[in-house]
Amino acid sequence: MGKKNVTFDDIAKYTNFSKTTISRYFNNPDSLTLENQKIISDALEALNYKENKVARILANGKTEFVGILIPDLYMHYYAQMLSEILATYEKFGYKFLVFEGNLDKTIEQQYIQELLAYKIEGLIVLSHTIASKDLAAYNVPVVTIEREDQYTCSVNTDNYMGAVQATSLLCKNNCDILFHLNQQVSETTPGYQRIQGFLDICQEYNRPYKLLLTSFGRTYEENEKRIGEILQEMEENYKGKKKGIFVSNDTHANIFLNLIIRKYGCLPEEYRIVGFDDSPIASSAIIPISTVGQQIEKIAYQAMELLVMQMNERKKRKPVPLREPIHQVITPVLKRRSTTD
Amino acid sequence: MGKKNVTFDDIAKYTNFSKTTISRYFNNPDSLTLENQKIISDALEALNYKENKVARILANGKTEFVGILIPDLYMHYYAQMLSEILATYEKFGYKFLVFEGNLDKTIEQQYIQELLAYKIEGLIVLSHTIASKDLAAYNVPVVTIEREDQYTCSVNTDNYMGAVQATSLLCKNNCDILFHLNQQVSETTPGYQRIQGFLDICQEYNRPYKLLLTSFGRTYEENEKRIGEILQEMEENYKGKKKGIFVSNDTHANIFLNLIIRKYGCLPEEYRIVGFDDSPIASSAIIPISTVGQQIEKIAYQAMELLVMQMNERKKRKPVPLREPIHQVITPVLKRRSTTD
Repeated sequence: MGKKNVTFDDIAKYTNFSKTTISRYFNNPDSLTLENQKIISDALEALNYKENKVARILANGKTEFVGILIPDLYMHYYAQMLSEILATYEKFGYKFLVFEGNLDKTIEQQYIQELLAYKIEGLIVLSHTIASKDLAAYNVPVVTIEREDQYTCSVNTDNYMGAVQATSLLCKNNCDILFHLNQQVSETTPGYQRIQGFLDICQEYNRPYKLLLTSFGRTYEENEKRIGEILQEMEENYKGKKKGIFVSNDTHANIFLNLIIRKYGCLPEEYRIVGFDDSPIASSAIIPISTVGQQIEKIAYQAMELLVMQMNERKKRKPVPLREPIHQVITPVLKRRSTTD
Repeated sequence: MGKKNVTFDDIAKYTNFSKTTISRYFNNPDSLTLENQKIISDALEALNYKENKVARILANGKTEFVGILIPDLYMHYYAQMLSEILATYEKFGYKFLVFEGNLDKTIEQQYIQELLAYKIEGLIVLSHTIASKDLAAYNVPVVTIEREDQYTCSVNTDNYMGAVQATSLLCKNNCDILFHLNQQVSETTPGYQRIQGFLDICQEYNRPYKLLLTSFGRTYEENEKRIGEILQEMEENYKGKKKGIFVSNDTHANIFLNLIIRKYGCLPEEYRIVGFDDSPIASSAIIPISTVGQQIEKIAYQAMELLVMQMNERKKRKPVPLREPIHQVITPVLKRRSTTD
């Protein structure tokens, strides 16, 4: 409580060393003899010296700060991923400066500049406004998750396999026609593989299919309205056919399911649904939703591991930069629940 | 890319000033004449000097870091609150070091110690393992949200008014008996006022009531099981009575609603439900749930404002500490949807 901080001056006086020697103790202890190191460390204890990490950082550049750029915390997937990344503190000791970009590229860039001024050691990026080429040019270790990653190390779900699992299940449920509900996705993002996997399996099983790539809006009401229109169209154009719908996230799968239940009071045999993510909404829906589960804990941990590896390399006397970005994929896990047979 | 940093040495050589003068420019510019300040700032530009905020922090103690301690990101309420706090970056410029405590007091304390070593300027605390008295003793500005706050400044929802709104609505819906479903809450936490408000209105309207204070478990399955048992008991003991249930969060209100709908295919007149929070699940439920909405954006903003006020005071030459912690309450907003008349 208001106690005066112990300064280098105080330590110098107490030990009869010069301030330069004290400074060397903190910045380059091996330049002192073991005896002198011991004298100073004893003095620190005697004086009740409180570590000032900011001072230490200035000396050795190790801030132990990692920046996280996330698009939003509305989608449960992001909240859960953030939660799992924060949990790695206990393992790796890095502290996280978190920023929510809300798709604003300019302010995301400004934020990265700020973080760099604070000497962050690395950056984990889930938001997708800044191209991986530009991220790489910041010259700080970066790992991206589930976004375009040509020039950055990344950890992603095996989206292709997830789509294969979901679509195969709908085929085996004897659906007459298959739908994939997703937003417009650029071919360079990992998520595009969900579309590719869907298309390949439809062709392999020789089933008619329809890609429904659309924009859903930003509020719940807009999302519900758009999905309601899609359902209406299906009802009109594919009456009597058994429809298998692979939805790219559980939030939308739940809206789709609720619209059907409100209309029919149950999920008719004519509709089979598979979501993606295994968000809490999938199990807490009115009928538990079959879904492709992402191993979020594993993704977060491996992303951090990949970042730590790069950050440690930077601390070596002669760091060897990676020749190529490393891309890791994590296997998804199909959860069969009550919206499929 | 790999360009060498400009050091004080470089600036000293370029300007013919001593390193001490350069250091004074950064730490105490007013000790130099305006002419000399200009010479050095021109040199910085010429040398393309990159600001090292860590160095500046060391000089003036202004890290612009604020720590956030949050219990978890599973409950949407916390994710949304975190999101709104992070969004204040654009207004106040503070960067946030975020930590998820998961009810582990020891590691939360360790984390605060780390943050203090990094010279955070303030702390926002939503987790509830550390007593407000202990938080206040850290001698750093603190604002708590929706937890015990005797010794700390705080911003909370007006929980009493929220309970009054919810319970009055159920009374006006002509419910024969009222229930309040909540966990065991200590009387010192703001959330206890939800119980108090419920009790007062039941007495005012002279309606029979039952407090259901219980532990729900930590997984979705455990929550659903416990709520199922509660529903079962209601069905057995209050058959034919119109039951009004005020549930302390929308996650549990949704589970309760789903269990009823699975049994009856609809929400019978015999059940009226009001949740709390206005989480996304309340509007995306199979029947949109009436709820007491928390103004989370407002709570987050005022919490930050209250913290900034304290942090600014600390920077004055003669800071005057607060005599008493300031407690602000934010009015909740009742959302009438389809689970009430």
